[in-house]
Amino acid sequence: MKKKRIGLFGSTGSIGTQALEVIDAHPGVFEVEVLTAQQNVEKLEEQARKFKPNAVVIGDESKYETLRSALSDLPVKVFAGPGALVEVAAWDSIDLVLAAIVGFAGLAPTLAALEQGTPVALANKETLVVAGDLVMATARRKGAPIIPVDSEHSAIYQCLVGEPRQQLEKIILTASGGPFLGRKPNFLINVKRDHALAHPNWSMGEKVTVDSATLMNKGLEMIEARWLFDLQPEQIEVIIHPQSVVHSMIQFADGSIKAQLGVPDMKLPIQYAMAHPGRLKNDFPRFVFKDYPALTFEQPDIKTFRNLAISMEVLRRGGNAPCVMNAANEEAVHAFLKNKVGFLEMTEIIEKALAQVPFIEKPTLQDYYESDKSARELALSMITRY
Amino acid sequence: MKKKRIGLFGSTGSIGTQALEVIDAHPGVFEVEVLTAQQNVEKLEEQARKFKPNAVVIGDESKYETLRSALSDLPVKVFAGPGALVEVAAWDSIDLVLAAIVGFAGLAPTLAALEQGTPVALANKETLVVAGDLVMATARRKGAPIIPVDSEHSAIYQCLVGEPRQQLEKIILTASGGPFLGRKPNFLINVKRDHALAHPNWSMGEKVTVDSATLMNKGLEMIEARWLFDLQPEQIEVIIHPQSVVHSMIQFADGSIKAQLGVPDMKLPIQYAMAHPGRLKNDFPRFVFKDYPALTFEQPDIKTFRNLAISMEVLRRGGNAPCVMNAANEEAVHAFLKNKVGFLEMTEIIEKALAQVPFIEKPTLQDYYESDKSARELALSMITRY
Repeated sequence: MKKKRIGLFGSTGSIGTQALEVIDAHPGVFEVEVLTAQQNVEKLEEQARKFKPNAVVIGDESKYETLRSALSDLPVKVFAGPGALVEVAAWDSIDLVLAAIVGFAGLAPTLAALEQGTPVALANKETLVVAGDLVMATARRKGAPIIPVDSEHSAIYQCLVGEPRQQLEKIILTASGGPFLGRKPNFLINVKRDHALAHPNWSMGEKVTVDSATLMNKGLEMIEARWLFDLQPEQIEVIIHPQSVVHSMIQFADGSIKAQLGVPDMKLPIQYAMAHPGRLKNDFPRFVFKDYPALTFEQPDIKTFRNLAISMEVLRRGGNAPCVMNAANEEAVHAFLKNKVGFLEMTEIIEKALAQVPFIEKPTLQDYYESDKSARELALSMITRY
Repeated sequence: MKKKRIGLFGSTGSIGTQALEVIDAHPGVFEVEVLTAQQNVEKLEEQARKFKPNAVVIGDESKYETLRSALSDLPVKVFAGPGALVEVAAWDSIDLVLAAIVGFAGLAPTLAALEQGTPVALANKETLVVAGDLVMATARRKGAPIIPVDSEHSAIYQCLVGEPRQQLEKIILTASGGPFLGRKPNFLINVKRDHALAHPNWSMGEKVTVDSATLMNKGLEMIEARWLFDLQPEQIEVIIHPQSVVHSMIQFADGSIKAQLGVPDMKLPIQYAMAHPGRLKNDFPRFVFKDYPALTFEQPDIKTFRNLAISMEVLRRGGNAPCVMNAANEEAVHAFLKNKVGFLEMTEIIEKALAQVPFIEKPTLQDYYESDKSARELALSMITRY
């Protein structure tokens, strides 16, 4: 069998390193064509030595020389900068792009891969949150499948396999509730970065972990799901499931519900997306019912976790609203991680950005870039004021 | 769209009447070609008047004249006896046989339909328990799909749709535990028919309800699953799930688990099997998470509910053992329903039948008939002794 050549965009992050573990565990199935990182030259060098890609790209151009000389003994092409990321993403030699760049920066390379008709395993949720209409239209036009890597969307994708799409009634996204489930604003006001980074179930990057604590993660996932599965806002439900065992569910027009379950381990959806349309045998720890005698479910408290209420409104509003919300949230989370703003202030920043950046109903790609920029500027100006 | 012509074998029982409700709710999708019943002339007449089948068959030949004169004003063919059931099951005018005859009597018409290449929606578990090897071989040879109606097997079937079959690692059959979950033998020894018929979740026929209380139902389902999904005994797990919301699960070689959930209502799997390979919109009550804040799971107590331990052993043994177990169980349950034997005595009858009827490793259909007969005779001789 011909090996699947992987373009791994964002190889030094949490998803990227786990994807390399999957590749490492299946040497007869995958090979690495491209590795990219934003900043981390040391880790990228280490990965390049082990996985022998055809090319590496460092996003931060100031690191180009360091990377090039570090890898000068290897027959590997070295590139730098956002332009190179986009160019390499369109390479014909890539069978699957794993889009694991965090944040807005992931959009352009993903679009470039789809334009080339290359299948994309999508771990970057901002791509769909910000410009879902354009991204899905490109994927459809080029016949390039997008296989989600997020555990929730992977669950829905897995449940939909082989089913009549037109009979999908609704999806039910599960949310762990994060480390502050059951807490009220008087508690949240004093929450600091380290507390927010202690997620009870999932091991993820810092940005996603904070988003999970504020429930913004679930809001972004609702918008992502809207595009990925072509849904109306009212077809998307969120339910709190603290054990994170049921990764999400779908309900059909006959009332039947299908769910995907497993231990909370990102390697499973990563491997699924990479192996799709097949599955690959592995020795990941299996789910054991006696470890989880009860699976519980409750309604989310959207009065306390206002990011989720805002997301629902943004989902309904459409246009550039998700883009603005996402940009303001990214800046707010970065500021929170630097202890510059408080936990609840993140929500205020997002609300003000949504109120002040002009609404555009049918944005172009350029409009998205500009909305993103305006929202960030607005957020940053607020952050310096706190 | 051409309507699907249904041959409904066992139309007056619990599954049969619910199937007719499904047909009634989708007049543009289904029409009734054949209705059959064993004894209940009155109900069969009523159903024939409403659904206007091409033919009706009454299993009990002594009821033929009564039925024929009752329906003399309708243009419907009337037949009687086991031979007629088999003959009509092979009619080319049937697009789908719904095999809902209870017990061993369901085997011959199902085999006849499969021989004809007619798809079978299978609600009769004894067909596979007794002669699963022959039945599945016939289905494969003729390319006739068997779609299970049992909620557990329907769940597994639904979860397997679109998935690579060779990557199925195991199945997890859920069991409600029945009305006596948590009880010990000192309690069970005094259980009477009415108590056993009060199932907490499911509305089913009397035989199945008693089997559910003894866990024999789950044992029969393990054997059924073994044939239906071509599994090894060690690939079949049983877990107690008192809420009966998760109807069953499957685990793939990558560790991913898929489950099918819903309100405990047999109409859903009945409709699924009839609509397959599509799904049909309906207005059945939807599952609501707030009605089930916790879904719980525990290991079955096979020391108390010995029928399940016996079934596991019979599953491993193979040959005519499942046939013998099933026959002895049928007689034992009938005797229990007539208050002739106690709850725990049912298990003793099964054990003795298994010990005394000679084991045959590769039985022919004739061997199955003889094993069934011997086991029944043995069971009956024990029953009169109690």
